[in-house]
Amino acid sequence: MMVTTMLLRSKMAAVKVAAGVAPHKGLKLMERYFSTQVLKSPLSLMSLDMPDIWAPPSPTDYCSPSSSPCNFSGQETAAVIDGKSIAEEIRSAIAIEVSRMRRCIGKVPGLAVILVGQRRDSQTYVRNKINACEEVGIKSLFSELPEDCTEDAVVRELLRYNNDPSIHGVLVQLPLPKHLDEEKILNMVKLEKDVDGFHPVNIGNLAMRGREPLFVSCTPKGCIELLIRSGVEIMGKHAVVIGRSNIVGLPTSLLLQRHHATVTILHAFSKSPELTTREADIVVTAAGVPNLVRGDWLKPGAVVIDVGTCPIEDPSSEFGYRLVGDVCYEEAARVASAITPVPGGVGPMTIAMLLANTLDAAQRVCDFN
Amino acid sequence: MMVTTMLLRSKMAAVKVAAGVAPHKGLKLMERYFSTQVLKSPLSLMSLDMPDIWAPPSPTDYCSPSSSPCNFSGQETAAVIDGKSIAEEIRSAIAIEVSRMRRCIGKVPGLAVILVGQRRDSQTYVRNKINACEEVGIKSLFSELPEDCTEDAVVRELLRYNNDPSIHGVLVQLPLPKHLDEEKILNMVKLEKDVDGFHPVNIGNLAMRGREPLFVSCTPKGCIELLIRSGVEIMGKHAVVIGRSNIVGLPTSLLLQRHHATVTILHAFSKSPELTTREADIVVTAAGVPNLVRGDWLKPGAVVIDVGTCPIEDPSSEFGYRLVGDVCYEEAARVASAITPVPGGVGPMTIAMLLANTLDAAQRVCDFN
Repeated sequence: MMVTTMLLRSKMAAVKVAAGVAPHKGLKLMERYFSTQVLKSPLSLMSLDMPDIWAPPSPTDYCSPSSSPCNFSGQETAAVIDGKSIAEEIRSAIAIEVSRMRRCIGKVPGLAVILVGQRRDSQTYVRNKINACEEVGIKSLFSELPEDCTEDAVVRELLRYNNDPSIHGVLVQLPLPKHLDEEKILNMVKLEKDVDGFHPVNIGNLAMRGREPLFVSCTPKGCIELLIRSGVEIMGKHAVVIGRSNIVGLPTSLLLQRHHATVTILHAFSKSPELTTREADIVVTAAGVPNLVRGDWLKPGAVVIDVGTCPIEDPSSEFGYRLVGDVCYEEAARVASAITPVPGGVGPMTIAMLLANTLDAAQRVCDFN
Repeated sequence: MMVTTMLLRSKMAAVKVAAGVAPHKGLKLMERYFSTQVLKSPLSLMSLDMPDIWAPPSPTDYCSPSSSPCNFSGQETAAVIDGKSIAEEIRSAIAIEVSRMRRCIGKVPGLAVILVGQRRDSQTYVRNKINACEEVGIKSLFSELPEDCTEDAVVRELLRYNNDPSIHGVLVQLPLPKHLDEEKILNMVKLEKDVDGFHPVNIGNLAMRGREPLFVSCTPKGCIELLIRSGVEIMGKHAVVIGRSNIVGLPTSLLLQRHHATVTILHAFSKSPELTTREADIVVTAAGVPNLVRGDWLKPGAVVIDVGTCPIEDPSSEFGYRLVGDVCYEEAARVASAITPVPGGVGPMTIAMLLANTLDAAQRVCDFN
């Protein structure tokens, strides 16, 4: 079984980490802790996540009604959560707000995007963001830096945008080339312009009771907005978040908790993730592992938000590949009460939330309500 | 049933919050979100926590073998996790490190404590911290400010310690009087001296994968240290944290996740907390509700860390009261495999961790290993 193999691998990796064999970033700190021998609890263990160590399933594992190991022969009864049309609705509302802002105070929100290198997927994401800005009347500026540029060059662009009063949101497209210090660069984004919500102060304030982050990361915010607009009650519900990345899993779990869900976070070290997931009223999956969540992982009537987006080969499709989520849609749609499709679910919401955050930033700075 | 009543109350409070009736701090932001009508997901919901809204149980509810509603007539078989002696061991190790530091570089760690007002419990905590410093050779400075002092006065003291090179850790004893802005004051503690770990940057970096907080809050760190020193494996285990306070519940859940536990956070809005808790291999409870966790909430063999410390009336004890935790110890000790007593469990660890953080801060600044 695919899942068993994956867990086994993750356990092996875990043992290596525990024994201090794996040459990962935190090791230096661990050694220091052990050398003083005052405490036995090293901090820097959390370095591995699902997409890093779970083996990709073989192509024959991709689920389809015919390859399903379970009997999901019933009809697809889940309501489809149509992220595309919800995102369009939000974008229209943003366009109206932007135009009201221009009319009332003669200003519009501004977003700056910094892209380093020539990753095809990053280029596409950035282009989509800029097009989306244009569509709603948000000004956008774009800096493209070569793959081998220095950290100083990135910082210079960043500081320029930090200091530009016509720019209210600054984002650095991730992932950055490996020679650049992502933590250092993201920490330099001005807090008031951190529309991606990745600054540790924003994450810390999202986590803490009684605090308000200036921004919440776009994808998690999009997930919650989808739930709310679909009439899903979150308060008191058991939500399972699969994956704990800084960009999706972590802030989504914190946000669900803010909405008073009881939250369980699953990751590659979790035992029997299918049993835990089966108890969830709401499942948000952001593991980046196609086909991870099968129909029999779900409680009948659960609501499923699938953040995963992986291209897999498909000779029958126009471009030779198609996008799949973490969830076996065909099976899940027969068990869940509502589900997001991939594509057309969470994806469009991410950009809509980026626009909303940029509008929010501009309205805050201009004191415009 | 006590628990039912409490949940009922919390639900009523929840409904009020959802309907925007309760006059809580986040309402302004909620209104703003609703007024623009761009998004429907207000951020500022998480404002209530267990101790605030769960009604205290009546004295007759306090568990004892005779009043137990369940049949826990077996022997107390759980190993007692002796926080007092573990903390003493750590304090001895710290004393040795401090003396090595003095010998090698002629410097010792320094801790400054700011206390505002005359709360008896706060005074006791502060006195214990200062005594503990003295015992291990850590220099301590103490500022006591009157209950009605201005925010400026607190900030002045804080900045003085922030700028004092002989001071490596600064802590503001909580809770502060209501007229002072706790968030603003805590955010002003210099990050490198935030030995309490309450700064949002430290919380954010604790939460984020691949990041390292400079400090982890003392009580959560103490809980993990107790588990590790008791030989409890955390990785892959299901841990349930009851309560989500900034000081204990939240950072404990983040820390357990760093150690690769599968973590579920329970709070006053959680439905059937006893069912979820019964699935846990590790239970950390920090709700501040005496007698909340009964024997039948636990899976046989679970490890229980009880952070709760509530004084309850007890005419038979010397001072007319005794301290109890969140867990019905007598019942739990018959089900769990290991358990911390109250007092003598987590309590002593908190101060030991404060000393460890102060030592760590000093060694970092002095580049002394």
